[in-house]
Amino acid sequence: MIMAKNNENRTILPEPTIRRLPWYLSYLRMLDSQHVSYVSSTQISKELNVQSSQIAKDLSFLNIRGKTRIGYEVSSLVSELEDFLGFNQQHNAVVIGTGSLGTALMQDHGLEHYGLNIVAGFDVRGDVIGKRLGGVPVYNISELPAWQREHGVSIAILTVPVDRAQETAELAIASGMTALWNFTPYRIKTPPGVAIANTSIYAHLAIIYNRMQDHD
Amino acid sequence: MIMAKNNENRTILPEPTIRRLPWYLSYLRMLDSQHVSYVSSTQISKELNVQSSQIAKDLSFLNIRGKTRIGYEVSSLVSELEDFLGFNQQHNAVVIGTGSLGTALMQDHGLEHYGLNIVAGFDVRGDVIGKRLGGVPVYNISELPAWQREHGVSIAILTVPVDRAQETAELAIASGMTALWNFTPYRIKTPPGVAIANTSIYAHLAIIYNRMQDHD
Repeated sequence: MIMAKNNENRTILPEPTIRRLPWYLSYLRMLDSQHVSYVSSTQISKELNVQSSQIAKDLSFLNIRGKTRIGYEVSSLVSELEDFLGFNQQHNAVVIGTGSLGTALMQDHGLEHYGLNIVAGFDVRGDVIGKRLGGVPVYNISELPAWQREHGVSIAILTVPVDRAQETAELAIASGMTALWNFTPYRIKTPPGVAIANTSIYAHLAIIYNRMQDHD
Repeated sequence: MIMAKNNENRTILPEPTIRRLPWYLSYLRMLDSQHVSYVSSTQISKELNVQSSQIAKDLSFLNIRGKTRIGYEVSSLVSELEDFLGFNQQHNAVVIGTGSLGTALMQDHGLEHYGLNIVAGFDVRGDVIGKRLGGVPVYNISELPAWQREHGVSIAILTVPVDRAQETAELAIASGMTALWNFTPYRIKTPPGVAIANTSIYAHLAIIYNRMQDHD
């Protein structure tokens, strides 16, 4: 089977698989910190509530095989997963919209452990332009095209108000960015070749409200 | 067709539908702010890149009908969607783990427009316990069961380190909470009757890395 590859020579995976791999990784990192050496897909299955056949299938995309009756070597699987997911590689990004969520992302050093390095923020608000948030400089959004020509960063994190989402995305793309992480609830339209991930926290809130079974 | 209902007498919907409804809402709110009176599912389809038959099906769960050749009345559809999604109702919540992400959520007044009212934070760190973050008091996690008996809040937002995710979820559930919003990459196991939504931002990062096609 021939799978499509991206520019880092990684196989382009189905989204459900990519969503599950970080679950495995976080569980395996925990085992690793507890000095557990081997783990079977049955154990992972029991712990994470994913069918073990699914786990074996997901892990088959990786360059690693479990041993019969012993399972996977935990530390190797951790580094294999980190490589595979791109978490071991440094990816520079900018935050556009430095409100509370944007600022939080600029201050969240957890993202660095997942290969994300936020190098600049952009905003329209005079009170924040020229300052630093979490050690990261904030520029006027009008400077983005020139800044991008100089720095060539690929990833734009969009934490702007919803009614600015599409135009901000278009500015980032016109400036040469090729990946958008959209935190607004707006469904941004992008041309082919631009990667996009939507993290719509309000949609998740709707899921909670819909599923809630209060007994108050 | 008989649909299951939750305690607020809302129909329990398939997750993909719940994920799309907030897209429609954010677009419709924008139209409403531009004083647009009517919109057809074809227009919504074109704007959001969702098939119009899918839109009609999703909106059929609501207590509203479009008019032939005119479409949906924008302002009615906005308030119908807000009611339906639970965004017009106030839901109290606590944040457990007041690191950078937890603090950001406590300070993000955007959530209030979606019916979420964060009333307390809980942590283990002595330097934040007893303080206020974004106007919200932070308590020692050991006080959660007693606090919860008094206040009866349903929703716990989990922004703890990944290796504390499961035990924190169990404490929240044992304290009587019935809904968890999990921001850790850990796949928490919950008993039946507990609502859970997973917002794993690191998984979304993996999707971006995997889809990126740089031309640097």
